[in-house]
Amino acid sequence: MRQVGAVLWPKLRVLQVYGANTGVGKTIFSSILCRAFQKRFPKVHYLKPVSTGPQEEADDRHLSTLSSNIKAKCLYQFADPVSPHIAARSSKEVCHSQPDSPSTKAYTSQSVTDDSVRAALHDELSSYATGEDGIAIVETAGGVLSPAPSGGSQADLYRPLRLPVFLVGDHQLGGIGTTISAWESLHIRGYDVQSVALFAEGRYDNHSYLKDYFAERDVHAFSVRPPPERHSSIAEDARAMQEYYEEAAASSSVTNYTSKFLQDHDKRIADLESISAEAVEAIWHPFMQHSERSKDTITAIDSAYGDYFATHTTQQALATSLNPTTSLLKPAFDASASWWTQGLGHGNPRLALTAAHAAGRYGHVMFASAIHDPALRLAQTLLTNMGNPRLSKVFYTDNGSAGMEVAVKMGIRAAAARNGWSADDEIVILGLKGSYHGDTMGTMDCAEPSIYNKKEPWYTGRGHWLDFPQVKMRKGRWVVEPPEELEGAVGETRTFDSLDDIFDFEKRSKDYSSYRRYCDATLAELIQKGTKFGALVMEPILLGAGGMMFADPLFQRCLVDSVRHNHSLNTQQQPQQGPQLDWTGMPVICDEIFTGLYRLGRFSASSFLGIDADIVANAKLLTGGVLPLCTTTASQAIFDAFVSEDKTDALLHGHSYTAHPVGCSVANESLKTMMKMDRGGWWDGFKGLWSPPGSNRSLLSGGQAGRAWSMWSEAFLKAVSHRSQVDSVFALGSVLAITLKDPDGKSYASKAAYEMRDKLLAGADGEEWVIHSRVLGNVWYAMAAMTTTRETVESLEEKIFAALE
Amino acid sequence: MRQVGAVLWPKLRVLQVYGANTGVGKTIFSSILCRAFQKRFPKVHYLKPVSTGPQEEADDRHLSTLSSNIKAKCLYQFADPVSPHIAARSSKEVCHSQPDSPSTKAYTSQSVTDDSVRAALHDELSSYATGEDGIAIVETAGGVLSPAPSGGSQADLYRPLRLPVFLVGDHQLGGIGTTISAWESLHIRGYDVQSVALFAEGRYDNHSYLKDYFAERDVHAFSVRPPPERHSSIAEDARAMQEYYEEAAASSSVTNYTSKFLQDHDKRIADLESISAEAVEAIWHPFMQHSERSKDTITAIDSAYGDYFATHTTQQALATSLNPTTSLLKPAFDASASWWTQGLGHGNPRLALTAAHAAGRYGHVMFASAIHDPALRLAQTLLTNMGNPRLSKVFYTDNGSAGMEVAVKMGIRAAAARNGWSADDEIVILGLKGSYHGDTMGTMDCAEPSIYNKKEPWYTGRGHWLDFPQVKMRKGRWVVEPPEELEGAVGETRTFDSLDDIFDFEKRSKDYSSYRRYCDATLAELIQKGTKFGALVMEPILLGAGGMMFADPLFQRCLVDSVRHNHSLNTQQQPQQGPQLDWTGMPVICDEIFTGLYRLGRFSASSFLGIDADIVANAKLLTGGVLPLCTTTASQAIFDAFVSEDKTDALLHGHSYTAHPVGCSVANESLKTMMKMDRGGWWDGFKGLWSPPGSNRSLLSGGQAGRAWSMWSEAFLKAVSHRSQVDSVFALGSVLAITLKDPDGKSYASKAAYEMRDKLLAGADGEEWVIHSRVLGNVWYAMAAMTTTRETVESLEEKIFAALE
Repeated sequence: MRQVGAVLWPKLRVLQVYGANTGVGKTIFSSILCRAFQKRFPKVHYLKPVSTGPQEEADDRHLSTLSSNIKAKCLYQFADPVSPHIAARSSKEVCHSQPDSPSTKAYTSQSVTDDSVRAALHDELSSYATGEDGIAIVETAGGVLSPAPSGGSQADLYRPLRLPVFLVGDHQLGGIGTTISAWESLHIRGYDVQSVALFAEGRYDNHSYLKDYFAERDVHAFSVRPPPERHSSIAEDARAMQEYYEEAAASSSVTNYTSKFLQDHDKRIADLESISAEAVEAIWHPFMQHSERSKDTITAIDSAYGDYFATHTTQQALATSLNPTTSLLKPAFDASASWWTQGLGHGNPRLALTAAHAAGRYGHVMFASAIHDPALRLAQTLLTNMGNPRLSKVFYTDNGSAGMEVAVKMGIRAAAARNGWSADDEIVILGLKGSYHGDTMGTMDCAEPSIYNKKEPWYTGRGHWLDFPQVKMRKGRWVVEPPEELEGAVGETRTFDSLDDIFDFEKRSKDYSSYRRYCDATLAELIQKGTKFGALVMEPILLGAGGMMFADPLFQRCLVDSVRHNHSLNTQQQPQQGPQLDWTGMPVICDEIFTGLYRLGRFSASSFLGIDADIVANAKLLTGGVLPLCTTTASQAIFDAFVSEDKTDALLHGHSYTAHPVGCSVANESLKTMMKMDRGGWWDGFKGLWSPPGSNRSLLSGGQAGRAWSMWSEAFLKAVSHRSQVDSVFALGSVLAITLKDPDGKSYASKAAYEMRDKLLAGADGEEWVIHSRVLGNVWYAMAAMTTTRETVESLEEKIFAALE
Repeated sequence: MRQVGAVLWPKLRVLQVYGANTGVGKTIFSSILCRAFQKRFPKVHYLKPVSTGPQEEADDRHLSTLSSNIKAKCLYQFADPVSPHIAARSSKEVCHSQPDSPSTKAYTSQSVTDDSVRAALHDELSSYATGEDGIAIVETAGGVLSPAPSGGSQADLYRPLRLPVFLVGDHQLGGIGTTISAWESLHIRGYDVQSVALFAEGRYDNHSYLKDYFAERDVHAFSVRPPPERHSSIAEDARAMQEYYEEAAASSSVTNYTSKFLQDHDKRIADLESISAEAVEAIWHPFMQHSERSKDTITAIDSAYGDYFATHTTQQALATSLNPTTSLLKPAFDASASWWTQGLGHGNPRLALTAAHAAGRYGHVMFASAIHDPALRLAQTLLTNMGNPRLSKVFYTDNGSAGMEVAVKMGIRAAAARNGWSADDEIVILGLKGSYHGDTMGTMDCAEPSIYNKKEPWYTGRGHWLDFPQVKMRKGRWVVEPPEELEGAVGETRTFDSLDDIFDFEKRSKDYSSYRRYCDATLAELIQKGTKFGALVMEPILLGAGGMMFADPLFQRCLVDSVRHNHSLNTQQQPQQGPQLDWTGMPVICDEIFTGLYRLGRFSASSFLGIDADIVANAKLLTGGVLPLCTTTASQAIFDAFVSEDKTDALLHGHSYTAHPVGCSVANESLKTMMKMDRGGWWDGFKGLWSPPGSNRSLLSGGQAGRAWSMWSEAFLKAVSHRSQVDSVFALGSVLAITLKDPDGKSYASKAAYEMRDKLLAGADGEEWVIHSRVLGNVWYAMAAMTTTRETVESLEEKIFAALE
């Protein structure tokens, strides 16, 4: 699969002609524009990527007749005069023209995929970008959402290239509505519709209405007189049309348009070239020491589609200036999944449409003492699919940090109520070293003291944090490595034949015993000292921002068991029949903001531990990578701790946009999509690369049992783990983490991962796309969207492997 | 103006027929549906709200001929056979049929507004809702976005009623695209498109494609065979069509559809009736003591449009069961502006489209070391329009609470750096009593101890909070009332002739002196004791969640002056040339999350004080009431305090969705719209009710000078202030606050405001719409969107005044 993305060349202007409907005059307008532009440019390219019907009647033939300096071409010509999606099914043969040869080749229709059309268009346009001033007009087939050969729509087919759009409006009866709807369909797909033009048809006067309508929306609209009536004589007809084109091209509406188009093109480039410098002036970036910031270190992201950003960097500007066939925009795989949020591809039209529907149905509606359908449905979906019988109530906030503040408030208030602690008691949490739960003060206080919080005057570490054994692949072997200081207590590094064996808790009863002894003893000692634990707070399996550390799941499981069965903690525990739904010891809070909702391959990340948390927080993938929303889901027992006749016993927490319908609706659509992918075996190909042949075990508790797997292949991990720079590697679900050796022993300050990041962003010479990634200290990590294909991951693996040379 | 909203009757089913284009067979499908439904219902209503062309050719005439139990009617009939927006301009006369009379009346076209069409349709449908099973089919004119008489689109005209939609797809060449685009246009306007149907036209096979397409999107789609060719004989034609209707109505696609439609109707009602009870099961509501919660106290919000929710309550269910002409949904004015966020009307199609465009262009793109156009543009718009030369850098977060955490981190870190304080020093903020800045722990710590935070184990009040004089209207007079304990220091209650006089700081030099003396002395005393102030944190003018208290702006101004010129605070102040851009004393943080961006009538709320803050936080109206986003804008001096060669000196704060493009884009559109309204004098009518005649003073500093005004009239305030239950009243910009007398002296626990709230939500018998409001203790408050008309505010004033009887 070829990856092509948004393009922008300094000297080659490209515009794409869409029609509000069929028969609105796309080819006539294209002809007028070719005529008009040929006065300004020595060569005008007209390109029809896909055409159906006899070749001799094709639009490109028509355009070729207009003038000798109009170079017209069709890339895929289907013989049947039907819609491309039908022609692609039925046509036996298709002519496919390649940029490097004037002759045409016969292809079977099977070869006409969206990818092949985009790649052919991309290559054709690239061949025009010679560094001389030029223009290319790309005419689509049918209307905006008319089917492409693959069956998808025109607008979706071409979206990755995101060419500036010239929309031909509908002058016919009903054309006001079809034109605006077509514009809306382009707009919600993220296109930049620069102009709308249509015939000035007097009967319906659509053009007057539409000019005002679009002016109101900062879209330039104009009209030209309709073409002359058909003559009976072909020669007469051709002459009349030539005259018409000549006159229309010279009309002030068209010359105004062409000037505007050329200005827009220059302005777009100027904006792109200045945006990073302007950002340095106006923006305070997150998580950044700004002494390291300059316009050269800021990546401009012009748009994004699927797995890729369309990026512009200082380096890209330089590359284009050296080689004019190089686009100013370069596709870069979004390997941080946009800070771990991206799940269903950038610019996903269904999520965009869902967001708009909710905004159109509600806008925002305040959530105090109220309910709306998207919020209820989302809560029910979470409760049903987490596979955790304890969970019973969903609380909404706007981001993970706020949602974890709520989780901690819930947990420690419930513990305080049961234990009879007062507000003066110092209540702390139990956590793991390297945990991260957010940047608001309450969640910062849940992290152990570190260089990140030590300069924050209001930071107070409120907890006790345990070190823990980590899972890694080292030199081709899976290992569980305890930290040095724990070796005495829990034993030394163990090796395993497969990742799955690490999750096979039953076989690891010896490890369990030593872990349990250690946890019990540590807890007992702390409680002995009078420590008041309000909650156990942890990220299941994967500690993200703390450094992409994969905790031994058995250790986390042990810790939960230890906490829940510690007799000195269970001061007021009631005996209970049936499944245990109430918390014992202390509430267990799972921060699944990063790890939940399929990031690690499962709906629930705590299901890997075989435990039912009392409180779970979800965000990031929750909204598929579109906008912020967070849920904190709690057990009935936690909820009940806040119920009394006294208002001040309540959880007096809320945000203005609590449970905003747009976020809840997008979350519903995202979850529905991922659950459907799961049920439909979308990830089976990836799983196949991990399952040992013949094995069919179902190891883990809960309804989400199954083997551990990753979108990154085990073979790749093995190969990487042998690289000389690599200390160790890990992958689970969509996440890959490579810990690089740190020659200077500086860990966070180590430059190795930065170098890797910069190398991948720069790319090799002539590489069609690069990798945009983020690092954490000496860990270089990457993650895919849940929709990324195996083919793309394979290409990534190749690039990553090569970068480690 | 009549306010009609979404309707839903238990026994009267209504569906609205839209066309993907003109000429796709809306009337034929309506006829088929009428035929099909008449087998199930004794009476079928067909309604064409607006028709153009000769009356004898009108669609309702055609429908009437089909069967005697089809009651067909047109509400507005224009004689000219042109698009309604042209007919409404040109037609001298129009027939307007009223529900209570079978005869038609002649109206001039001036009377045909969107409001009148909606009201007529609403009343007509209401007259059908007799409590007997029935159905009404409402056929629109032209395509989905074809113009209505007013010039707006069909879909926008009827959106307030939000009837379930039957979309007739386009069977013609190009119809796949026009049908999907039409569906998208309906979808982004929040419609529930239940079914798509079209003629099974063999040549283009649109129906096969569209059935699959919509099935994928959970929209039921079906086709019927096209009508027979026209005969030359009219009688023959009529007979053939009758046969065709009969056959089509009996076809399995249509009978499947009718069954599904009836089931959907019942399901919609069942869902609406159970949603509150299900919410009680699954939701943990914000800010609520859940012992007070039951299904009867939860308002179901089915949709919203403009200023109004479409609400369903237990009371409304009862009203409908008593009177079947009452809709299960009732319009309720959203008087809390959905927790103070709403600015440009619910379901605003432009904001919905903008959100979708950004989602389509980007999805989310991570903001670390990156920039995208919407984020840069928003930052620049804020910096340019705040009129505060100090502000220089914009930091993004997701909600006000997180944004204020950032503001406080910025302020106290900058102060600590300049003063050489270490992390061990106890740094506090200076604030006002009753302040509220959010519910995350860092912002909770900025609020004085109160019943809201006292049970939060991790709460630590980190500040010193001053009491302050308040502005109120009491018995028709404007007063500034100092709290009792300050009377000695700052004097007693003062009265003023106008609100404007309170803002006339020059005339109030005596007040200034006494305030200043008090502030200086208090500060000196605290600093003497060793208090380390990291920042002054305040909400300019209006302290929101703390109880809608209007602070005397002169007192807040004084406090800033005192802080900035206090010699004991300015330990390391450098002398400076030109305008003062660096902070002195301590950084001044203005929390304008609620008060900024026109909520009080101005872009900047601190401009009322004539001060330039060092840090300003904005949210709520920032995104016009769609989704969460917050900006924290800081001066260059604050920013510079974090710049060094050491990464740990940086503000290591960030959220995954930082500067999400959807939020930034919606904010850009919202601000653009409000700034345009401001420039265009949108609020002049409101201002006119406040300006004393002949006065033309420009009192306040900055580019945003102008008189103080409110969307609530001064005359209304005067009248309300004389009501016996009322203690005092205040209004500024869109905000109104009525403090009710508290006979029991219980203040927050007082029930007076709750009673008022409940009374307004219940409404009087037969009232077309009610008021949904929130209260804060004994304060009942309301606010309008910035787009609410004076007419609506007048109606609100009447209802509020009446409720105070």
